[in-house]
Amino acid sequence: MKIVIPKEIIPDEQRIALVPNAAAKLIKAGFEVAVETNAGAASGYPDAAFTEAGAKIAKTAQELYSGANVILKVRPPVLNKSAKKHEIDMMPSGAVLICFLEVLRDPGIAKLLAKNKITSFSMDTVPRISRAQSMDALSSQASAAGYKAAIIAAEASHKFFPMLTTAAGTIPPAKVFIIGAGVAGLQAIATARRLGANVEAFDIRAAAKGEVESLGAKFVQVDLGESAEAEGGYAKEVSEEAKKKEHEAVHQHVAAADIVITTAAVPGKKAPLLVTDDMVNDMKPGSIIIDMAVEQGGNVDSSKPGEVVYKHGVKIIGPINLPGKMSIHTSMMYARNITSLLNLMIKEGKLDINFEDEIIKGCCITHNGEIVHELTKQLLEK
Amino acid sequence: MKIVIPKEIIPDEQRIALVPNAAAKLIKAGFEVAVETNAGAASGYPDAAFTEAGAKIAKTAQELYSGANVILKVRPPVLNKSAKKHEIDMMPSGAVLICFLEVLRDPGIAKLLAKNKITSFSMDTVPRISRAQSMDALSSQASAAGYKAAIIAAEASHKFFPMLTTAAGTIPPAKVFIIGAGVAGLQAIATARRLGANVEAFDIRAAAKGEVESLGAKFVQVDLGESAEAEGGYAKEVSEEAKKKEHEAVHQHVAAADIVITTAAVPGKKAPLLVTDDMVNDMKPGSIIIDMAVEQGGNVDSSKPGEVVYKHGVKIIGPINLPGKMSIHTSMMYARNITSLLNLMIKEGKLDINFEDEIIKGCCITHNGEIVHELTKQLLEK
Repeated sequence: MKIVIPKEIIPDEQRIALVPNAAAKLIKAGFEVAVETNAGAASGYPDAAFTEAGAKIAKTAQELYSGANVILKVRPPVLNKSAKKHEIDMMPSGAVLICFLEVLRDPGIAKLLAKNKITSFSMDTVPRISRAQSMDALSSQASAAGYKAAIIAAEASHKFFPMLTTAAGTIPPAKVFIIGAGVAGLQAIATARRLGANVEAFDIRAAAKGEVESLGAKFVQVDLGESAEAEGGYAKEVSEEAKKKEHEAVHQHVAAADIVITTAAVPGKKAPLLVTDDMVNDMKPGSIIIDMAVEQGGNVDSSKPGEVVYKHGVKIIGPINLPGKMSIHTSMMYARNITSLLNLMIKEGKLDINFEDEIIKGCCITHNGEIVHELTKQLLEK
Repeated sequence: MKIVIPKEIIPDEQRIALVPNAAAKLIKAGFEVAVETNAGAASGYPDAAFTEAGAKIAKTAQELYSGANVILKVRPPVLNKSAKKHEIDMMPSGAVLICFLEVLRDPGIAKLLAKNKITSFSMDTVPRISRAQSMDALSSQASAAGYKAAIIAAEASHKFFPMLTTAAGTIPPAKVFIIGAGVAGLQAIATARRLGANVEAFDIRAAAKGEVESLGAKFVQVDLGESAEAEGGYAKEVSEEAKKKEHEAVHQHVAAADIVITTAAVPGKKAPLLVTDDMVNDMKPGSIIIDMAVEQGGNVDSSKPGEVVYKHGVKIIGPINLPGKMSIHTSMMYARNITSLLNLMIKEGKLDINFEDEIIKGCCITHNGEIVHELTKQLLEK
């Protein structure tokens, strides 16, 4: 069985789906592993490290895909410009593809996969059940993103995060306000706390309070008058009335903060606008906002994907692909996630997929020329 | 008595010599304070904050300097392009100037100051005695620089600094190696430790061991066979033999590190080359080097001021004016330092300078048309 790892094509994507260490384990289990040349170079995993692990290096994508049984990728397949072919068209019929297919954003890709008879699994629809924890790539990558967002904020800020007592006076700790206490938000809180900042956090899910407080941050409590927690622990959209209450609470904490980090994304939906222009206007000059939801439409008025915008003396940063800026470790974690899922499909050295398994059911998008994922089908029918 | 604060002219210098809070204290003591318009805008101190503190806003440098008795600046005077005059030529004869004159780098400026009969004091030659601690701007600014260097390293790194135990495996802490444990180095150590990194530090001054260890870092011990500590606690240049011993010790620790931060600057001399190309070559791909001495010639082979250089898969960052990237807090600390020195020159609401005072003697560069600073005179005679 040949497992292949292509070089990611999407610009600036530095991650790779498998690291040498994880490749070695698959090779030890009796599989053939091939890696496209330079696929790991940008994330600190040179070809030599894969060769040392026993993997083969393919000089081109064409060579790589030839005879492949399993394809492990990070981002969804796209057009390979140098091969002048879509990646899906290079994959052998009947092959298994595992990656972030992002079907909630673009369900259309499922049609192409079904047409080419690829059995595909999307890392971003793995159910959040305890048996699937080690396969939860959304969490592992979001955790790295939250860490990086806090570091980028510290880098951009002209203030110290920690309190300092010096001969030149006492420097008070920076005030960091984090909106959204999911995996990314919690890691941003933990990182800002590590640096010594005074951290406040808000989440429309009241259940987040305990987690926020366990990290040494203050939870901003707002009575929304309704629950905002969807199945699986994700946040869901709330009513207009609840949004207004949220807005008022957020306003005063944004105005008092030196740093605001927003992390409120609802999977498959446009991110809610949480920090409005009047809030930005009430911030102190020199303050910093990091909009982690900028790629999903943004939580912050004026934020732009991949850009830095100055508004009312506030620096608004809209970072894209934060997990990609942590590629040495996010590749390592992703490799662990993806091989955990792959191992679920393997019995006695061969692919043996139980399509009735809850995890498999949750993340299988296409099989045998059909779209089998219910939510994807619904989105396509819309 | 009129105390004036011009807008800094050197490109990207965002600091200001006095913050509104410090201005208010001087005004309360009976002095007139004038600030050039927008002088604090880039560091989060708008004109309105100074007006509120009771300061006057001057629309131009010309208007500001007119009738000025004391001029407080951050960087050395340079040509004011919009006024088509050198800043020194705009200062009234007999006025007192306090700023970083950087005479060790360019003693020539002392001639111009003497010619125009400016009584000048340099913040960078204030003696390091305990009575002058609150005036030690070199330390306050170096502390901010060390903090920022560690944050920039974390921002550039594709690895987590802290150890993380996640469902996707355990992430080991990043290995950070810091060369030079002066004020900047110690703050870089403290910051990397706050973030959870595994920190090692080296300093040719064996006395640094205790301070390094008190921050939770490991001190790399090397027997140089001679002392490397100069008067005032600064590092001094060592013999060729000692350099070779240092080189060998540094090599293995650089090779093992994910992050190297070099902070070894000898005041008034070219910074020693400590990280050679063969050391960089032995680092893992994706590693990061921050050369804090890049403006003094650099501790790292290939580092360039204000640039990012990639060598052997290692990202070498040569940041310039790090204190300027912390301008909200460094302006606050600098204001405290400079007013402490100014207060030493004031008796009963008037300038009354005791030129026999050890601190005044140490930092007075020119007075009554003469260069009075011994080291500056020696440098000019060379």
